[in-house]
Amino acid sequence: MHLLIRDATLLDGSTGSIGIEGNRIACIGVDATAESDTPPTRVIDGTDLLAMPGLVNAHTHAAMTLFRGYGDDMPLMPWLQERIWPAEAKLTDDDVYWGTRLACAEMIRTGTTLFNDMYWKVPNAVRAIADSGLRATVSGGLISGDFLGDLKGEITELIAKYEGGEFPDRVRLAIAPHAVYTVTPEDLEWCAQLASDHDLPIQIHLSETLHEVEECVATHGVKPTFHLKRHGILDRPTTLAHGVWLERDELELLADHPATVVHNPVSNLKLACGQGREVRGWFDYPTAKAEGVNVALATDGTASNTNLDMFEEMKFASLMAKHASGDPTCMPAAETLDIATRGGADGMGWTDAGRLEVGALADIVLVSMREVTLTPVHDPVSHVVYAANGGTVHTTICDGQVLMEDGRIEGLEEVRARAIEAARRVTTG
Amino acid sequence: MHLLIRDATLLDGSTGSIGIEGNRIACIGVDATAESDTPPTRVIDGTDLLAMPGLVNAHTHAAMTLFRGYGDDMPLMPWLQERIWPAEAKLTDDDVYWGTRLACAEMIRTGTTLFNDMYWKVPNAVRAIADSGLRATVSGGLISGDFLGDLKGEITELIAKYEGGEFPDRVRLAIAPHAVYTVTPEDLEWCAQLASDHDLPIQIHLSETLHEVEECVATHGVKPTFHLKRHGILDRPTTLAHGVWLERDELELLADHPATVVHNPVSNLKLACGQGREVRGWFDYPTAKAEGVNVALATDGTASNTNLDMFEEMKFASLMAKHASGDPTCMPAAETLDIATRGGADGMGWTDAGRLEVGALADIVLVSMREVTLTPVHDPVSHVVYAANGGTVHTTICDGQVLMEDGRIEGLEEVRARAIEAARRVTTG
Repeated sequence: MHLLIRDATLLDGSTGSIGIEGNRIACIGVDATAESDTPPTRVIDGTDLLAMPGLVNAHTHAAMTLFRGYGDDMPLMPWLQERIWPAEAKLTDDDVYWGTRLACAEMIRTGTTLFNDMYWKVPNAVRAIADSGLRATVSGGLISGDFLGDLKGEITELIAKYEGGEFPDRVRLAIAPHAVYTVTPEDLEWCAQLASDHDLPIQIHLSETLHEVEECVATHGVKPTFHLKRHGILDRPTTLAHGVWLERDELELLADHPATVVHNPVSNLKLACGQGREVRGWFDYPTAKAEGVNVALATDGTASNTNLDMFEEMKFASLMAKHASGDPTCMPAAETLDIATRGGADGMGWTDAGRLEVGALADIVLVSMREVTLTPVHDPVSHVVYAANGGTVHTTICDGQVLMEDGRIEGLEEVRARAIEAARRVTTG
Repeated sequence: MHLLIRDATLLDGSTGSIGIEGNRIACIGVDATAESDTPPTRVIDGTDLLAMPGLVNAHTHAAMTLFRGYGDDMPLMPWLQERIWPAEAKLTDDDVYWGTRLACAEMIRTGTTLFNDMYWKVPNAVRAIADSGLRATVSGGLISGDFLGDLKGEITELIAKYEGGEFPDRVRLAIAPHAVYTVTPEDLEWCAQLASDHDLPIQIHLSETLHEVEECVATHGVKPTFHLKRHGILDRPTTLAHGVWLERDELELLADHPATVVHNPVSNLKLACGQGREVRGWFDYPTAKAEGVNVALATDGTASNTNLDMFEEMKFASLMAKHASGDPTCMPAAETLDIATRGGADGMGWTDAGRLEVGALADIVLVSMREVTLTPVHDPVSHVVYAANGGTVHTTICDGQVLMEDGRIEGLEEVRARAIEAARRVTTG
């Protein structure tokens, strides 16, 4: 046996041990040690540690972690025009590498083991994820316009590398048309065809603002989800980020397709995406659930959050579901944790990740129940969603490898130093 | 000089040292050391640490930390009837002491140095706060009905002890009629008179649910704030917890009195207090600000939160203000931090606390900027509100005493063990 977590607290409150062989969970239970022929190479003492599946961040722009807190409290367009775009124009390959490494370090620190990335200069993100030890699906955002030819070329090259075996097993590729308001119908169809030809999933932004919905209806005569359906996007397994303004008929349509709505509560609040006329828009979780739509959770990029802490995101998601529905029993803790783990993993096609069960990929997080903020424990699942934050994560394991133990991440100081240097350069002068 | 924090990062991004003499801030600046005749007894190296005022939790029920996560995702009445009330009926004096000690330890861990408590068996809370080293205003909730005589007796006894000098300097007393729906007009007037006779502030719940507002209008013919005015409550310095449904005319009235609205965003979301008919109720911060009402921030009790982390509360407050107003520039970071420090301190009458300035009480928190979740730093104030959580607090100083350094709190293990034991006993059998 590769690794044994001995006598941890499990989510149902019982005590159990977890055995890991290679990159998979081999056994869970009181007698986990007895089920292996060979003694474990490494043992982690699980006393006062709660074992849970690694969290799944189903929509982010990892390298943007360089821009954490760079222009908060600003309206969207001045923020983009005065801060983000000028800084992004200066990003080198190395900057994307170190920005992604910083994001990975933060995710390891806060208990995320799988994420869904969308950015530019993707090969650098792939290198960074490979070096960090995390699991991810990556994609390069496609936007119609001046750079379309370059972007298409980059995406085609990426596919060749991916199919040529140049990605590690932990990293997969998706196709990412940016959104209905930035990609023409023809380019949406190009993306859908490409995804189909190479059997790849799709990631796209959808229904983030009321303006986007109204513009789509005015231009194309249908709501955004029906527009995506018309141009083939929904035929592929697709993660749709935001869904703030999705209506019942759109959720019904999504339920009939291999689609996942990725809820980004903190980003939606911070950018006031719910700004409407008489009512505030909010992702309609009760209807999505009733219709059987798969739901996932995400932080979005750090620039609109300002961190990648999925524990915090779970609390925001559950509490906002209660507020928006007017029902304190809406999105209870166990459902929230399921969305933040299995929901995202399934949505991204990693159907053997995001669960703590025998045979699944060994992506496991141990939370310290010794923290005063988690004392006493009446219900571990409630604590994970409502009381914990990423700082309470003690150990993070991905693909069977221990990436952090007792809060220590190897090589963190170099990552921080290089990222600070890159952030300073692209945001000054 | 008693204590020197050398070369910390200040909130404006500059580097400075902070000198403390006794329980007050003696000097701040590059030459802080030069301004003292005597060398400092103790020096804290402020490298990579951000110095900020201790946070102020302006409404909580500290001892209820024993019930953290005990019955989440439940409607209010079954939660109270099946969980909280039976458990509270078993609380001994010692349970309140250890429950309050646990809350104090959590507040020290997460950077809160002053809080506004409302609970029962108050002398035990006073002992716990005295032993913890924190600063607080305490009060025993008064509810009209069967136990009114006992409650009035306890409050009168408390005042005698307070005026007899039996409280430490760090602990003050307030009068706390529970709410307009649990206290008769006569008893409100008794409280107002008592507060006036003994020059004490008042703490009360106000406008937490639409039901409370409608019932008040139906019974008394006026909205709750006008009802409080009529019965003398607003003549005293008063902290009013919640204010979810306050309307413009009520905020105008409050602006003309020594009143502070204490916003409790997490509790209000968790209990779905905004449940209305067509729209969701939410504390109307833009109007409160425009009218000049003093605003404070609080976690409420742990049972409806599920923690006492004021960093998390700041993020919820600011993001919800943006969402509810539809304006991403609403309640910017600096304003949020001001509400969570000076706003609460002023509201509770601790006008020399909640600020990091020469002459103020030395209640100071140092946040570790080495945390990967706070890397890089473009704007320290933005990081405090949007990226940090209580786990990033490195050092907590209250009344000039170091209560936590590098995350270590003296005596924490005993507090945890005794609180766990108490929590187990009152929630079983």
